[in-house]
Amino acid sequence: MIVLGIDPGTAVTGYGVVQEERGAPPRLLECGVIRTLANAPLPHRLRNIFEGVGALLERHKPDVVAVEGVFFGRNARSAMVLGHARGVILLAASIHGLDVAEYPPAEVKNAVVGTGRATKEQVGFMTQKLLRLREPPKPADAADGVAIALCHCFRSRSGRGSSSFPLPAAVAPVTR
Amino acid sequence: MIVLGIDPGTAVTGYGVVQEERGAPPRLLECGVIRTLANAPLPHRLRNIFEGVGALLERHKPDVVAVEGVFFGRNARSAMVLGHARGVILLAASIHGLDVAEYPPAEVKNAVVGTGRATKEQVGFMTQKLLRLREPPKPADAADGVAIALCHCFRSRSGRGSSSFPLPAAVAPVTR
Repeated sequence: MIVLGIDPGTAVTGYGVVQEERGAPPRLLECGVIRTLANAPLPHRLRNIFEGVGALLERHKPDVVAVEGVFFGRNARSAMVLGHARGVILLAASIHGLDVAEYPPAEVKNAVVGTGRATKEQVGFMTQKLLRLREPPKPADAADGVAIALCHCFRSRSGRGSSSFPLPAAVAPVTR
Repeated sequence: MIVLGIDPGTAVTGYGVVQEERGAPPRLLECGVIRTLANAPLPHRLRNIFEGVGALLERHKPDVVAVEGVFFGRNARSAMVLGHARGVILLAASIHGLDVAEYPPAEVKNAVVGTGRATKEQVGFMTQKLLRLREPPKPADAADGVAIALCHCFRSRSGRGSSSFPLPAAVAPVTR
């Protein structure tokens, strides 16, 4: 199973691609960030994210996309802006016919570090250990993407359901 | 000038396509709604919206897309969900190389009815009058899309700037 984990953001979207085979520890295939230009208009930044995620899907052909879920503690403005980035990521997954699994931030930290209140440094440290890397994934947003992918691997093993959006078998028509 | 006005929503996205030529009153080319299946997963609904808007852009080749702007009075959850729909609409415009203009709900109502606190019925009535239709655009979400397109026509005439997202001339690279 190959999992693409994504931590969405309009400025920086972190990602990690993790492969897991039965009986073997998870392996990191790639991680990094999709950065958008700070002074670019929002539609343009969304296109950068959409194309960046599309390129990852083409390159790694993952079996599932795991996305950081919604944290409703934030205010309406930042929730709306984050929603834009999540929208184009979910769209990219849907266009590629992939299921999307969602994990709240605290669940990701809990799965990887053992506590929902883990720091960025702890997430970096544990993703390094779990994937036997020489150093933590950098920048921290990339480590977050990796952590989300790992979270999905662990949750799938234990058979615990995620708040996923399974795609229906048939494509429903657009009704006008 | 052809304007595609859009009132985004994950369940129902209203739209109106309005043509305006110098010295002539605006003319309605098409209006309607893109409905998504209530029980479909969110990524799938976003794809329906993205493809529906893409089909409109192909069919009418508008010069600009006008989208209902952000109303921050709503709570974080609904702002986030609405953000998803707006995200794929802005993306569709960007992919087609179109500028996006944004108008807050109150500004749209003010431009079309004369008051920012107009009711749905008043918006329907005035879009009917302004476009010399036999009846108000239906459903109300379609009338909202038409009103947004009209708002852009009026604001462009008066030379008043909108909070637009002009696209840069060159496509910026995706940086990883």
